[in-house]
Amino acid sequence: MILKAPFSGKFILLFTLVLVFITITVARANNGHELWLSKASPTSVEIVCKRKSPILSNAIKELQDGWQGKKGAKLVLAVTDDKTLKGDGFRLEKEGIYSRTEAGILYGAFELLRRQSLNLSDNRFVSNPSYELRVLNHWDNLNGSIERGYAGRSIFWRGEKDLNVSSKDLELWQQYARANASIGINGSVLNNVNSSPRMLAPENLKRVKAIADALRPYGVRTYLSVNFSSPAALGGLKTSDPLDQEVIKWWKNKASEIYKLVPDFGGFLVKANSEGQPGPQDFGRTHAEGANMLADILKPFNGIVMWRAFVYSSTDKDRARQAYSEFKPLDGQFRDNVIIQVKNGPIDFQPREPFSPLFGALKKTSVMPEFQVTQEYLGHSNHLVFLSTMWEECLKSDTYQEGKGSTVARCTDGSIFNQKHTAVAGVANIGLDSNWTGHHFAQANWYAFGRLAWDNTLGSEKIANEWIRLTFKPAKSAVNWENGFIEPIRKMMLESREAAVNYSMPLGLHHIFSANHHYGPGPWWAPANVRVDWTPPYYHQAESNGIGFDRTKSGSNSVGQYAEPLASQLNDIKSCPEIYLLWFHHVPWDYKMKSGRTLWDELCNKYDIGVNQVREFQKVWDKAEQFVDTERFAHVQSRLKVQTRDAQVWKDGCLLYFQQFSKRRIPYELERPVYELDFLKSVNPMQLTGKPSGEEWMK
Amino acid sequence: MILKAPFSGKFILLFTLVLVFITITVARANNGHELWLSKASPTSVEIVCKRKSPILSNAIKELQDGWQGKKGAKLVLAVTDDKTLKGDGFRLEKEGIYSRTEAGILYGAFELLRRQSLNLSDNRFVSNPSYELRVLNHWDNLNGSIERGYAGRSIFWRGEKDLNVSSKDLELWQQYARANASIGINGSVLNNVNSSPRMLAPENLKRVKAIADALRPYGVRTYLSVNFSSPAALGGLKTSDPLDQEVIKWWKNKASEIYKLVPDFGGFLVKANSEGQPGPQDFGRTHAEGANMLADILKPFNGIVMWRAFVYSSTDKDRARQAYSEFKPLDGQFRDNVIIQVKNGPIDFQPREPFSPLFGALKKTSVMPEFQVTQEYLGHSNHLVFLSTMWEECLKSDTYQEGKGSTVARCTDGSIFNQKHTAVAGVANIGLDSNWTGHHFAQANWYAFGRLAWDNTLGSEKIANEWIRLTFKPAKSAVNWENGFIEPIRKMMLESREAAVNYSMPLGLHHIFSANHHYGPGPWWAPANVRVDWTPPYYHQAESNGIGFDRTKSGSNSVGQYAEPLASQLNDIKSCPEIYLLWFHHVPWDYKMKSGRTLWDELCNKYDIGVNQVREFQKVWDKAEQFVDTERFAHVQSRLKVQTRDAQVWKDGCLLYFQQFSKRRIPYELERPVYELDFLKSVNPMQLTGKPSGEEWMK
Repeated sequence: MILKAPFSGKFILLFTLVLVFITITVARANNGHELWLSKASPTSVEIVCKRKSPILSNAIKELQDGWQGKKGAKLVLAVTDDKTLKGDGFRLEKEGIYSRTEAGILYGAFELLRRQSLNLSDNRFVSNPSYELRVLNHWDNLNGSIERGYAGRSIFWRGEKDLNVSSKDLELWQQYARANASIGINGSVLNNVNSSPRMLAPENLKRVKAIADALRPYGVRTYLSVNFSSPAALGGLKTSDPLDQEVIKWWKNKASEIYKLVPDFGGFLVKANSEGQPGPQDFGRTHAEGANMLADILKPFNGIVMWRAFVYSSTDKDRARQAYSEFKPLDGQFRDNVIIQVKNGPIDFQPREPFSPLFGALKKTSVMPEFQVTQEYLGHSNHLVFLSTMWEECLKSDTYQEGKGSTVARCTDGSIFNQKHTAVAGVANIGLDSNWTGHHFAQANWYAFGRLAWDNTLGSEKIANEWIRLTFKPAKSAVNWENGFIEPIRKMMLESREAAVNYSMPLGLHHIFSANHHYGPGPWWAPANVRVDWTPPYYHQAESNGIGFDRTKSGSNSVGQYAEPLASQLNDIKSCPEIYLLWFHHVPWDYKMKSGRTLWDELCNKYDIGVNQVREFQKVWDKAEQFVDTERFAHVQSRLKVQTRDAQVWKDGCLLYFQQFSKRRIPYELERPVYELDFLKSVNPMQLTGKPSGEEWMK
Repeated sequence: MILKAPFSGKFILLFTLVLVFITITVARANNGHELWLSKASPTSVEIVCKRKSPILSNAIKELQDGWQGKKGAKLVLAVTDDKTLKGDGFRLEKEGIYSRTEAGILYGAFELLRRQSLNLSDNRFVSNPSYELRVLNHWDNLNGSIERGYAGRSIFWRGEKDLNVSSKDLELWQQYARANASIGINGSVLNNVNSSPRMLAPENLKRVKAIADALRPYGVRTYLSVNFSSPAALGGLKTSDPLDQEVIKWWKNKASEIYKLVPDFGGFLVKANSEGQPGPQDFGRTHAEGANMLADILKPFNGIVMWRAFVYSSTDKDRARQAYSEFKPLDGQFRDNVIIQVKNGPIDFQPREPFSPLFGALKKTSVMPEFQVTQEYLGHSNHLVFLSTMWEECLKSDTYQEGKGSTVARCTDGSIFNQKHTAVAGVANIGLDSNWTGHHFAQANWYAFGRLAWDNTLGSEKIANEWIRLTFKPAKSAVNWENGFIEPIRKMMLESREAAVNYSMPLGLHHIFSANHHYGPGPWWAPANVRVDWTPPYYHQAESNGIGFDRTKSGSNSVGQYAEPLASQLNDIKSCPEIYLLWFHHVPWDYKMKSGRTLWDELCNKYDIGVNQVREFQKVWDKAEQFVDTERFAHVQSRLKVQTRDAQVWKDGCLLYFQQFSKRRIPYELERPVYELDFLKSVNPMQLTGKPSGEEWMK
């Protein structure tokens, strides 16, 4: 009879075991989609909030879903007129969260929950944002690809033939907006700065409205990159001259159309007269004339224009000088709702650059820093590089433009200059990959950008600490969590950017990539048909007598664009920080460095140190195995392998190439190259060592 | 007027400078073609030699061209009946060189010149060869390819459509013979043991005669590998049954034909009933019946038969047992001009094998060791591996077959058993590459084989020392030659084979190559259509409970083929040398090794040590740059890079594969893998890391 029973005892036991096994396995797998917002079992909390709005509803939901404080506590959420608060700032009190804006209440809610998660005890304080506008720039194309995106295709676009908004879309956009809100990001530019005129076509704007509607309940405003020649290219006008009345009318109509769909539309981001993009100069007008035309049109809607200063002609002898040369003379000519968006360094998001001399130099113009969260020049989504330290380095750099203490942070956040608007932008690293950013640790860069945009005085150690604790949760059985995991992982993150500098372009070297993929080394790369300021030899200037770009007074004098005493400090090889040495100086191979080594030996050492740092990261991560779910452990482990191989390729490629000029030996105590220079010149470094995910790989 | 002069002073100066430059450059280039026989400026010597012969003429020429002794010295060369001399042995006296054979005089001349080159003072002594026949086996095919050749195509063959003998051929064969004579090699088998029946076709034999004529003046006799089915396949007979009268007649006629062309023809080498080759078993006859038939025919001509014991069927449970199983029962049945040619180990030229149990076990049969000079299983011509230590290890292994001290050397050189003929064979590593052997350091293996064939008691340190000093000559400006070059290079050579074992198959692992190229790691390699004893899992037997092939008494009992007390020593895991551990034992992963580590940790350590050893070789070589011509320096430097990358691939591939079974972590103090197992499984290791030269690469 037992055999005839539909479920025998043995079967049930087996079934139960299988279920248990699946549960355990699933529990140990984590695709990272939850980011730093992983759920905990909440205790009960009573929320009192008189006002009703989608943003406030989200604040209430977050608190109810994530409350880790006293069980049954009562919390008031209130929009107040507290003068100690600024913009979206908030005040946390034992009994409530107060802000002048609804978004501020939401940020306060996330901050409170974060502090509960981190077991921080002091939950009474005021927090005001450093910047009014904290914006992600998505370099997403309408066809769904992402320029310099390494985490899959666009979350916003998948081609103009597929503009339907699905429930999956809405779910993802809502998750995206929530993640942004959790770190204070309040703006998203939905498309590439290399913008198609088609962006402004009605059918695409319809999708923009849908996105904006999804982001709005989390306080995230929507912006668009626009192509300056849209009036002609999309509107069919004969010109796009910004002073042409028909053109102005076209833009006015377009703005009305947009604001009808998106009443809180944030404004335009413009890449004009830069790398082939159209701009006012095509019509004999200045950047100011172009930007102001758009600004005047957006003004009645409270919209702004973010106008990029990333310009350089192919003829100038020093690309590093050009943004300053073009924009400094225009200081004071821009409307107060124009913000000049300036990349952190004078060239282009290199692993290390000195700050752009425009910071602090534009005194009568709003200026916003542009950081790159996506790792275009830092190993794509293959390399573990925590960028917070790089941004912190920039923000804390002293420009001396208004005396000592005129840091980039203070020059841009309104502390020094009376900007109507303050803002900061980050080029997003987000795509359709289930973990959003390709590399799990690249999530930390999204996180860090938001945190620094909110508070530009934060230290990277604090940010790393927060991110690790929020992102990785110890298993109940974990022992030695603090010293075995948090400590070494934080140390690795904080060291990672310097490691990348060491193995790729130490001592001020920059832009020595092979080809346009910006992945592997190519100090030799200089095809005849490529403009010279896109080729590495232009930047490293290696010769038998030395290496480095002479930007001193006797060279291109880009040092002259900095304020004193910095200009003189940089100008003098003895006082120029060695991290910027080859950026500002052409230095003899046997120049004696502070270490006592020659420049050549120092260079060799830096590359070697870089390789060994990544090897050490591998050890750190492998030791962390017991603390991490198997899925993320394996993923990061695999990418660290690629990073080590890449670091070796960088070291060998650069040292063997530069050795042709230095004619010096790699110090015998260092590990020897394992590649031939000719071999490295002949292969695509992405195929040799990497398996970059996402768009770049599919192309 | 000056302008009209055909050669102005400036022009002449420039021309002279260019000439000087070319001369210096050429002087520093060395393609290695001279081997260890680089020329020196001789002083004068007067040679007295009553007899005249081509061999003696060559001896005289060598002495006159290379004399570094007292200027104007007088030297007698004399063939004597000195009873203290054996075979080609010679006696060096202050006033002359004496031998019972003309070849012995030539060997004595080379020895004397070598001692002068090495600045050795004691030049009075007797030297007798350990083996009567010191033979290179060329695995050259008639089409010019070389099986397991990595130094270009055959020096003997380039296809049956091109049998013409050119003056270049003759020059090369003469250089080859001279190099052999300089180290005592006195026989060459001109073609692959996997022999085409076409080898014995008249047109090919004509070329054999030409080769034999070129080798003879240097005392090198010519042999051929023959296909056992030649009577049918070439002669058109219905059978090749060795007891068939027509077959015997065919062989008799063929022998006569050969001896007419080559009166001192050495004999046949036969690979029979092995890896698909035909043999007497195809006709129900034993190896003895097959070999004896040929031996009887060659006997009148003083020819010999070298009959290979490299046999294994696809059905036996342990390939390592099979040669012994087949040949031991035949002991005593072979003619006295048959020599059984036994590979050093029971499997197939692995980086490390215990000696073949046939050594010493065949007590009434002539046995000759077969070593592999070409690096089929040791990195081809990409890896620097000095094989002398491997052969020394084998020769000095004690078989205990006739009590303690019954070394492989003594079991094969006539010291213990009364062999009619003694012989040793080396599978050549020679091809058309300008440096003969692909890797410059592979020349040392040719050299070492010759030296050990002459004196099987020589130590590898002495051989390495000789080779380095003869092969690399210090520039006049060189300082610290002994400690800066000789010492570290010798150390590197002596360590190199153990390094190869460490990074490829330590602790007794064997035959874990991917595919038939025998280059990179493939412990996973087991295609369904390949016989299992050609696949690595057959050999490593990795499972969750441990790893290694159980050849103990409770396993395949291959230990039982060894004499006591060795058999018991190998049988006991506690007394089995750890270098052979996984050869003889299936060992639990957590077995405690002598180091105190678990087996798994020890395995990880060995691989890691191997990688670092090669890195160290790179340093040693780079430091030697000042002492070596640029051409050989760059060549070796480049191959050491490949070797380091290969070592990494080996380490990663093997550890990541075995880790699937061990389920244990690679000790955290060790450098982490940089490859993914799946990636290594998906690529051809030769394309991944290597650029092997020669035939294998062209295929």
